[in-house]
Amino acid sequence: MTYTFTEGGVCAPKGFRAAGIHAGIRKNPEKKDLSLIVSDKPCAAAAVYTKNKVKGAPLIVTKKHLSDGRARAILCNSGNANTCNADGEYIADAMCESAADALHIPKEDMIIASTGVIGQPLPLGPITASMGELAKLLSYEGSREAAEAIMTTDTSPKEVAVSFELDGKTCHIGGIAKGSGMIHPNMATMLCFVTTDAAISGEMLKKACTYTANESFNMISVDGDTSTNDMFVIMANGEAGNREIVSEGEDYELFLKALLALDIKLAKLLAADGEGATKLLECRVTGAPDKDTARKIAKSVVCSNLLKAAMFGKDANWGRILCAIGYTEGEFDVTKTAVSISSKAGSVEVCKAGAGVEFSEEKALEILKEPEIVIYVDMCQGPGEATAWGCDLTYDYVRINGDYRT
Amino acid sequence: MTYTFTEGGVCAPKGFRAAGIHAGIRKNPEKKDLSLIVSDKPCAAAAVYTKNKVKGAPLIVTKKHLSDGRARAILCNSGNANTCNADGEYIADAMCESAADALHIPKEDMIIASTGVIGQPLPLGPITASMGELAKLLSYEGSREAAEAIMTTDTSPKEVAVSFELDGKTCHIGGIAKGSGMIHPNMATMLCFVTTDAAISGEMLKKACTYTANESFNMISVDGDTSTNDMFVIMANGEAGNREIVSEGEDYELFLKALLALDIKLAKLLAADGEGATKLLECRVTGAPDKDTARKIAKSVVCSNLLKAAMFGKDANWGRILCAIGYTEGEFDVTKTAVSISSKAGSVEVCKAGAGVEFSEEKALEILKEPEIVIYVDMCQGPGEATAWGCDLTYDYVRINGDYRT
Repeated sequence: MTYTFTEGGVCAPKGFRAAGIHAGIRKNPEKKDLSLIVSDKPCAAAAVYTKNKVKGAPLIVTKKHLSDGRARAILCNSGNANTCNADGEYIADAMCESAADALHIPKEDMIIASTGVIGQPLPLGPITASMGELAKLLSYEGSREAAEAIMTTDTSPKEVAVSFELDGKTCHIGGIAKGSGMIHPNMATMLCFVTTDAAISGEMLKKACTYTANESFNMISVDGDTSTNDMFVIMANGEAGNREIVSEGEDYELFLKALLALDIKLAKLLAADGEGATKLLECRVTGAPDKDTARKIAKSVVCSNLLKAAMFGKDANWGRILCAIGYTEGEFDVTKTAVSISSKAGSVEVCKAGAGVEFSEEKALEILKEPEIVIYVDMCQGPGEATAWGCDLTYDYVRINGDYRT
Repeated sequence: MTYTFTEGGVCAPKGFRAAGIHAGIRKNPEKKDLSLIVSDKPCAAAAVYTKNKVKGAPLIVTKKHLSDGRARAILCNSGNANTCNADGEYIADAMCESAADALHIPKEDMIIASTGVIGQPLPLGPITASMGELAKLLSYEGSREAAEAIMTTDTSPKEVAVSFELDGKTCHIGGIAKGSGMIHPNMATMLCFVTTDAAISGEMLKKACTYTANESFNMISVDGDTSTNDMFVIMANGEAGNREIVSEGEDYELFLKALLALDIKLAKLLAADGEGATKLLECRVTGAPDKDTARKIAKSVVCSNLLKAAMFGKDANWGRILCAIGYTEGEFDVTKTAVSISSKAGSVEVCKAGAGVEFSEEKALEILKEPEIVIYVDMCQGPGEATAWGCDLTYDYVRINGDYRT
């Protein structure tokens, strides 16, 4: 292992402070709704955004501010997505200005994000009124508060950090993220903020950002709905003192491995905490004709409503896995497919050469009682491999989304 | 109107008999599980099938038998899909042979279909043992029994018939269909059998079959899962005595209109009776750049889990409609979009030029209490129009699919 998981979230890297408070965007005074992450020094920064054609106003403003590949701070509110609002960009810009003033940095160094209900005007008042207090609360141990303040229907805050060595210097990458519905990211996820003290150029950071998003956040799905506000952003302040990574090579690979491990861990936390979820589903595809097909098959399986409901019901209804493989786009032969279902409690093969094999239903039930289920799909026809993550479909998903706005 | 809805299902056309019985494939003796439809005379016949790469064995056998564009009878069992079974084609073939023997027709004139659990061997015994009795039960009033015998999780049998005139002769088209989960048809739907006494060539029948399937069954979705056993088949025995339709023209257009009306009615019945559904959702898209984009947008809206859950909760959360439009594939401008939500109880505009407009939540709640909801989406940028149908996502969908096999 070239990296170690550690504590501290976005504040694990040197020189990053964070805070979160209740500003009053959400009605419940117990729920934080405004989050701030700030680097002591200017950072190289990169982001990927949702491919949804409806884009939240904050994404448009952030994209503008990141055009120079530099940033200092991230401001994010929950409770309102600031999307499909006529004054959306004005509000997002004003939020940046308010934070920039409080932090004494240029407005263009602000990254802005919002999450919550679409199409309801976001009031500026509570945000500007709380900015002074929020800035005062900034702390080198503030990651958890920041992670809490970006939550919507998440049941727990999501923080991960890793440390690793680059030419003798200890580097860190830390991240916070939130789900947990409208999760079917396409190029990014519903808000993930990553910090690092590694020195890395904006160009290489962008490359690492895109690559790891594809292998982590873009491989999870809670409900097949690609959000309008997905954003995965990373800021690197170079405080670790390593030789700056400016091209591919050993250092970049080490950085990439650590970042990918962090992203996958966050992605799995998002999938496991999908709205109403009781189980994390993982689908590992091997033997597909190529990587792209493997990705599509893995995603198709974790996205199937029928399979997700069966997993909730602990029903080893593997025909639904074959069905989901079968309707995946692409050219491949389904008659070679082998499927096993596995968890901590063991493993059973349920299908071989595209047809059912006898298995113990009792054993399968034992396996499916566990909270983490792995579905192994071997297409037996090529080198393509991929893994995707999802969750089960439950009564609570319906309950949560039946009256999300009220 | 060039056609009239009438009674009698697949037996409305002259010269078609049908029957359904409990053969013992399903455990519950109250549930019929074997269905037979027979024409007194040979028929032109055409079918479209699922595009799922995993295909039920009956589809493979039927495709072979329909290669000459002729058929006499349809045999269908419920309770078992005969899919992903090593002996699937052997069983499907033997079922054809058993029915053909009882009906004294060539085996190659049999159409065979199955629906139910995937990947469990289908026992031949109960089927062959019941064939004599089933053939004896055939009746010119037997459509309802046949419709009942193909049901799985459907809550009611689905029968529709229309009558219309072709060169002075009264013609009929009748159909039965079943849903109600794994419904996201791609070129066909989970079993729809249509009969007609109109004389029409196999070639023109195939054309009408494909065209109307695209505009009806291919525009519904219950859960986004494309079944392995979808089949839409139509048999024309010419008993109405009209001049045979052998090319495009007025007669074909009349036939097509009547067939499309029947298909759309059946498709809506399937969507409204989607697993666990309490509401039929209809999305009518206008103003899209082209027809294909309109179809994709309409389908994207009725497929959104988040919107479906909101409709169940009577929540006018229109941001989810915009979100689903936004992640639709294709090139279009979302900033012009206007959206209204409508039902028997009235209509409210919720979005204009891509941004929210004020509306009465009380009025919206009244509208959403109705069992049929229409969502009007005007993209305001072109001539493309399409309509798609779906249903809400409910606790019962989760319950039904949590333990489908037990």
